[in-house]
Amino acid sequence: MRTDGRQWNELRPVTITMNPNKYAEGSVLVEFGDTKVLCTASVEERVPPFMKGQGKGWINAEYSMLPRATQVRNQRESARGKLTGRTMEIQRLIGRALRSIVDLQALGERTITLDCDVIQADGGTRTTSITGAFVALSLAVHKLSKTHEFAKYPITDYLASVSVGVIQERTLLDLNYDEDSKAKVDMNVVMTGSGKFVEVQGTGEEAPFSRQELDGLLGIAEEGIHALIAKQRDVLGVKGSRIGVITV
Amino acid sequence: MRTDGRQWNELRPVTITMNPNKYAEGSVLVEFGDTKVLCTASVEERVPPFMKGQGKGWINAEYSMLPRATQVRNQRESARGKLTGRTMEIQRLIGRALRSIVDLQALGERTITLDCDVIQADGGTRTTSITGAFVALSLAVHKLSKTHEFAKYPITDYLASVSVGVIQERTLLDLNYDEDSKAKVDMNVVMTGSGKFVEVQGTGEEAPFSRQELDGLLGIAEEGIHALIAKQRDVLGVKGSRIGVITV
Amino acid sequence: MRTDGRQWNELRPVTITMNPNKYAEGSVLVEFGDTKVLCTASVEERVPPFMKGQGKGWINAEYSMLPRATQVRNQRESARGKLTGRTMEIQRLIGRALRSIVDLQALGERTITLDCDVIQADGGTRTTSITGAFVALSLAVHKLSKTHEFAKYPITDYLASVSVGVIQERTLLDLNYDEDSKAKVDMNVVMTGSGKFVEVQGTGEEAPFSRQELDGLLGIAEEGIHALIAKQRDVLGVKGSRIGVITV
Amino acid sequence: MRTDGRQWNELRPVTITMNPNKYAEGSVLVEFGDTKVLCTASVEERVPPFMKGQGKGWINAEYSMLPRATQVRNQRESARGKLTGRTMEIQRLIGRALRSIVDLQALGERTITLDCDVIQADGGTRTTSITGAFVALSLAVHKLSKTHEFAKYPITDYLASVSVGVIQERTLLDLNYDEDSKAKVDMNVVMTGSGKFVEVQGTGEEAPFSRQELDGLLGIAEEGIHALIAKQRDVLGVKGSRIGVITV
Amino acid sequence: MRTDGRQWNELRPVTITMNPNKYAEGSVLVEFGDTKVLCTASVEERVPPFMKGQGKGWINAEYSMLPRATQVRNQRESARGKLTGRTMEIQRLIGRALRSIVDLQALGERTITLDCDVIQADGGTRTTSITGAFVALSLAVHKLSKTHEFAKYPITDYLASVSVGVIQERTLLDLNYDEDSKAKVDMNVVMTGSGKFVEVQGTGEEAPFSRQELDGLLGIAEEGIHALIAKQRDVLGVKGSRIGVITV
Amino acid sequence: MRTDGRQWNELRPVTITMNPNKYAEGSVLVEFGDTKVLCTASVEERVPPFMKGQGKGWINAEYSMLPRATQVRNQRESARGKLTGRTMEIQRLIGRALRSIVDLQALGERTITLDCDVIQADGGTRTTSITGAFVALSLAVHKLSKTHEFAKYPITDYLASVSVGVIQERTLLDLNYDEDSKAKVDMNVVMTGSGKFVEVQGTGEEAPFSRQELDGLLGIAEEGIHALIAKQRDVLGVKGSRIGVITV
Repeated sequence: MRTDGRQWNELRPVTITMNPNKYAEGSVLVEFGDTKVLCTASVEERVPPFMKGQGKGWINAEYSMLPRATQVRNQRESARGKLTGRTMEIQRLIGRALRSIVDLQALGERTITLDCDVIQADGGTRTTSITGAFVALSLAVHKLSKTHEFAKYPITDYLASVSVGVIQERTLLDLNYDEDSKAKVDMNVVMTGSGKFVEVQGTGEEAPFSRQELDGLLGIAEEGIHALIAKQRDVLGVKGSRIGVITV
Repeated sequence: MRTDGRQWNELRPVTITMNPNKYAEGSVLVEFGDTKVLCTASVEERVPPFMKGQGKGWINAEYSMLPRATQVRNQRESARGKLTGRTMEIQRLIGRALRSIVDLQALGERTITLDCDVIQADGGTRTTSITGAFVALSLAVHKLSKTHEFAKYPITDYLASVSVGVIQERTLLDLNYDEDSKAKVDMNVVMTGSGKFVEVQGTGEEAPFSRQELDGLLGIAEEGIHALIAKQRDVLGVKGSRIGVITV
Repeated sequence: MRTDGRQWNELRPVTITMNPNKYAEGSVLVEFGDTKVLCTASVEERVPPFMKGQGKGWINAEYSMLPRATQVRNQRESARGKLTGRTMEIQRLIGRALRSIVDLQALGERTITLDCDVIQADGGTRTTSITGAFVALSLAVHKLSKTHEFAKYPITDYLASVSVGVIQERTLLDLNYDEDSKAKVDMNVVMTGSGKFVEVQGTGEEAPFSRQELDGLLGIAEEGIHALIAKQRDVLGVKGSRIGVITV
Repeated sequence: MRTDGRQWNELRPVTITMNPNKYAEGSVLVEFGDTKVLCTASVEERVPPFMKGQGKGWINAEYSMLPRATQVRNQRESARGKLTGRTMEIQRLIGRALRSIVDLQALGERTITLDCDVIQADGGTRTTSITGAFVALSLAVHKLSKTHEFAKYPITDYLASVSVGVIQERTLLDLNYDEDSKAKVDMNVVMTGSGKFVEVQGTGEEAPFSRQELDGLLGIAEEGIHALIAKQRDVLGVKGSRIGVITV
Repeated sequence: MRTDGRQWNELRPVTITMNPNKYAEGSVLVEFGDTKVLCTASVEERVPPFMKGQGKGWINAEYSMLPRATQVRNQRESARGKLTGRTMEIQRLIGRALRSIVDLQALGERTITLDCDVIQADGGTRTTSITGAFVALSLAVHKLSKTHEFAKYPITDYLASVSVGVIQERTLLDLNYDEDSKAKVDMNVVMTGSGKFVEVQGTGEEAPFSRQELDGLLGIAEEGIHALIAKQRDVLGVKGSRIGVITV
Repeated sequence: MRTDGRQWNELRPVTITMNPNKYAEGSVLVEFGDTKVLCTASVEERVPPFMKGQGKGWINAEYSMLPRATQVRNQRESARGKLTGRTMEIQRLIGRALRSIVDLQALGERTITLDCDVIQADGGTRTTSITGAFVALSLAVHKLSKTHEFAKYPITDYLASVSVGVIQERTLLDLNYDEDSKAKVDMNVVMTGSGKFVEVQGTGEEAPFSRQELDGLLGIAEEGIHALIAKQRDVLGVKGSRIGVITV
C-alpha cells in the first residue's frame, strides 16, 4: 500500500480544467494529485528563423516552476539570469513530444508555443505538463480550424505521459514527490493514442535495472497512459462534440 | 459609464482565495476583476548579507508575469537572461510598501519573501499584488506566531493599493488594461489602514496634470483603498477569529 | 537650520556649465551643490524598432554613477554584467519625464539619447539629472533646428525636478545625501514651466505620511522647481516666450 | 549494407589512446570511427557545496564540442555566454551515468570531474564520451589508489554506451552522423559490465515506435555495449596488470 | 607639420587637476589635449581572494568610456551586459603598469583601485589614463601615509605612458584620434622615472615595421615620457612640499 | 643550462601535423614542446556586419584552453558565462597578427575564422597558436584557390611568433611554463617572413627592463622566428619563392 493509499498501478486523481486563461488560444489547468500545471498554447503567425521558408510550422515548449511550487522556495531562473539544465531538458522533452503528433506541414507557417508553468509540484511535473499541454494544443488548433481551413488536420494522434519507478523492488505508477525521491529507478514514458512510444527515458542512477524490470515498467506506463488518454478524450469531447475532429 | 459598466469611483469585483498553495507559509489568489495574481509568502530563518547581525528581519518581494498573462505572449525574463526595468521597478515597490507596515525589529532575524506571480493581467497588476501580498504576509506571520512568541506583533497596520487615472477629463478608480492604455495620467497609491500614504506614484507622460487633478485622484484612491482594506479585514477575520491579532 | 546652513525651503547652489563635451549635440555639467552630473544629448537619425514607421521620434535616457561618485566605491554595473533595479528605475523616470515635454511627431523619426553620468553624488542625483538633461536636450534640438526646418518646434515646455522630504516633522527642499538618509518621507517631483506635474513619486518606507504632509511637500517642490526653471531660462537665454526662442 | 560498409549490428572501429594529457589524473582519446573525444579526469580534494559534510565524494561531467568539430562551424558557447540545452542535457547524462558505477561513500570527500571535449563529431558523441570517460575515470581512481588506501574500491562495475536507431525499418547499431540525421527513432543506451541498464533514452520525434521495435533496439545495444566493454577491459588490462583491481 | 600645429616630437598640452572628487582617497582630472580622463584611487582594507594571507597588497584598475566620449555614441558596456575585449585589455594594462612601481609587500594587505573614466576621447586614452592614475595613486598613498606608518614607502618610482606611431614614414609622438586612425604602426610605451620600460606594445596591423622604425619610436617615446614625468613631479611637488616622500 | 637541457637561444622541438580535422578547410596540430594547439581555419562566404559592402574579407581568431590543458583544472569560460580578459586579449592578438599578412581586398567578401584550441599548455600558447594558425590559414586559402581564381594571392607573407624573456639576467628563447612563471620580463614577438615586426609586446610587471635588455630580447626572438618560418616553409612545401607557390 502506498502512503496516499493508492494501488501500485493506480494514477493519482487527474483533473483537467479547460480554458482558465482568457487570452490564450488554448489553456488548461491540469492536476495529477497535488501537482498543478497551467498550460497555455499561444499561436503566432510566424516561425523561428531556422524554419523559415519551408512552408512548415513549429511547436515550441517552455517550462517553469513558480518559486514556491516546492516545499522549499527556489530561486527564480530570471533572477539567476539563466535556465537550469533541468528546465532546459524538460522543455526540450515537452516540445519534442508534442511535435511527434503534429503534422508541421499541415499546420502551415505558424508557431504554437506551449507554456507549462508549475503552480504546485508534487512529483511528475514533466509528465503532467505533457499531458496537459496536449489538451491546450488541441484547443488552440481547434480554435484555429474555425478561422482557417486546414487541408489536413494538423494533430495526428493523442499524446500523454506518465512516470513509473521502482521502489523496494515494487514497480509503481505515477510517483509523487515522496516516492520519486526514494525510487532507485525512475522512468518517464510518452505514448500516443495508438499505443506507440514517443519517448522512453529511464534512469538508474541509484541502481542499474534489468531488462525484466524495464519490461515491467513499460507495462504499467502503457496502462497509465491509456487511462490518461481516456481522460483527454473525455474533456475534448471526441464523440460528436467540440473537438470531434480528432478521430484517431 | 465605463466599458465594463462600473461607476467612475467603483472597484472591480475583488476576490481573495486563501491558501491555494500547500507549501507556502501564507498564500492567496487575489483577483481584481480579470487581473489574477498568486501571492505566496515564504519564511526563511536568515537575512540577506546587508542585514546580518542587526537583530532585524527583512521583507523581500519578487514579481513576475506568466508569458501568456497578457493578450500577446511575452518572452520569459528567464529566457532573456535578465529582468526588465518594469519588473524591477514593481518588485522594489511591493517590497518597500510591505516593509512600511512591518516592524523589522519585532520580526527578528528572518526573511519573508513575497512572490507575486501574475496569472492573468488586465491592468493594475502591481496594486493587486500589493493588496494580495499583504494578506499572504499576514497569514505567514500569523502562522509564525503560533510557534514563535513575538514580544511585539510584527505587523503594524493594514495595507492596500489601487490605481487611479484620468481619461478624457474623468477621474477613474481601479483602471483595467483598456482604460490604462487610454489614460493621460496614471497614478498608483498605497495606503495603510490608518489612512496614511505609503507610496504615491503619479505619471503624466502623455499630459502633465494640475494640482487640482492630483487632489481628485488622491481622493478616490483613498476611497478605493478603504474598501479594499475592508475586504482584507473580512478574509483575515479580524473580529474574534484566525488573524484577530491584527487589531489596528 | 540645516547642516549646510540652508533654509528649509532653500535650494543648494545650482550651476549649469554649457557644452563641456565637444562631440555631443548638446551637453551640460549640472551641479546641485556637491552633486555633479554630466548630461549629454546624442542625436541619431533612426528610432528604436518599436517606434518604426510611425513618423515619430523618441527620447531615451541612460543613467549611471561613476564607481567613486559615492563615499564608498560601488562596483561597476558593466563588471556586474547587469543594471541594478535602482538604475533602471531612474533612467526610465528621466526618459518618461523628458518625453512629456517633447512633441515626438514634431521631432520626426530620430532618437535623442540623454546620458546622465553622475560624477559625484551628494543626494538628488535623479532630480539633478532631469534638470540638466532638459538643458542638454534643448541645446541639441536647437542645434538640430539650424539644419532642419521643424514645422513645429518639438520642445513644448520647460522641465525641472527637485526632491523634497520630511525630517523630524520638518519639510525640506532639495535634500543632500545626509538629509536623504535620515528622511522618513522622500519625494521626487517633476514639473513643467507651466506649473503642471509630470511625475510625483513619494515614498514613506520609514513612516507613512498624511495628506497634509503631502500637500506641504508639493508646495515647496513647486517653489523649488520654479527657481530651477528660472535658472534654465537664464542659461538658455530665452527672451520673453516659452521655448521656440531658445537663443543660446 | 550501410554507407560505410558496416553490417547493421556492427560497431565502427573503436580506438582508445591512453593518457594523451600529461597533467590529468586520467585521460583518454577515444574514437568511434571519425568521432573523436578527449576525456580527462581531474581529481579535487573537495566536494561541491550541496555534498559537503556527508563523507561522500562526487562525480561531475562537462561536455563541449570544439567549434569546428562539425561540418559547419558552430559558435562557441563561451562566446554566446551560455550553454545550450543540448550541452546541458548531455553533460548531465554523462555525470549521472558515471555516478551509477561509483560508490561515492568509498570514494571519500573528493570530486572527480570528467571533461569530454569533442575534437571531431560524426555521430554518437555522447555515447563515445561515456565510454571514454569511464576509462579516464578508472585511470584516475587507479592512480588515486596508489597514494590512498581505499577501504572499498570505489568503482563498482564497467560502463559503456552506444546509440541505436531505426532507418527505413532497419535497426542499426552505432549510428554515424549521416545515419543519425535520417533515423526515425534514435536511442542511447548506457549499460554496466554486469549487463544492467543505467540509462535508456529513446526518442521517436519523427515517428513513434512500437514495443517490438524497442525490444529490437535494446537487443543490439546490449550486444554493442558488450563489445565496447571488452575493449575497455582490454586497454585497462584486467588480467593481472595495471588496473587489475577492477574485477567485476 | 601636424594638423594641430605640433612638432613631430611634441606632446599635446597636458593638464593635471588635483582632487576633483571629494570622496576618493586620491583623484585627478588628466588631460592630454582633448582627451580627458577622471582618475580616482579608492583604498580598501582588504585584498582579492587570490591574494589573501600573503601579507601583500594589490593594485587594481578599471577603465571605461562614457558613451558620448567619442564622436559617435557608443553603447554602454553595462547595457550590453559585458565588457569589450578592448576595455579588458586596457584595464589589465593599467593595473599591470601601476603594480610595477608599487612594492605590494610594503603596501600591506589593502587594495587600491584606480578607476579611469574617459570623459572625452581624442586618442591616447590608455596612456593618458596611466599617466593620471599614477598621480591619483600617489595622492592616495600619501594620504594613507598620514594615518599609517609605512616601514617602507610603497611607491618605488614615477610612471608615465605615451603613444607613438608612424604616419607616412614620419615618427610621431602622442597621437590624437585623427592621427591614430591613419597610423600604420601604433605603439604604447610605459616607462618609469628611472628610464626603464614597463610595457612596450607595438602593433603593425596595417603594415609591419622594421627594427629601425622600432628604434625611432622608442626614442621619441622616451623623450615624451620624460616630459610627462616632469609634469607629474611638478604637480606632486617633489621638492619639499606635499608628496615630497617620493624622492626617486 | 635550462631545466629541459636547451641552450638559451634554442627553441623547443616543433611539430606541425597537417589536416588532423576532416571538416575544416585547413587545420594543423602544432606543438612547441609540450604545448599543443589545434588550429582550424573555417571559411564562410560572408563578412561581419561592420565589414559589409566594402568588397573586402575578414580574418577572425578565437582562442580557448581545454579545462585540463593546465596543471590545475580551470573553469570553462562557457560555464562562467563570459570570456576572461586574458582570452580576449589573446584572440585579438592572433586575429590582428594574421590580418597583417592577408590582403583583405584580394581575399574578397569572405571570412576565415581561426580557432586555436589549446589541448595542453606548457607556456607560449599564444605564440604557438599564431605560428600554427598561419599554416592552417595557408591551407584554407590554398584550398580556396583551387575553386576560386584569386586576381592576387591573398597571403602576402609568412608569419610566426615566439616568446622571449629574462630570467636571472639571462635572455631566453621560447619559455616553457616553468620559465615563464619565473621570468621578470616577458615578451611576445610576431614577425613576417621578410623580417618585419607585426607585434612586439613586452611586459616588465615584476621588474622594468632597460633598452639594452629589450635589444637582446628582440635579437633572439628574430632568430627563433626565422627557424619557425623555415619549419612552416618545410610543411607548406614552398619551392623557392615567398608564398604564391604553396604547393601542399
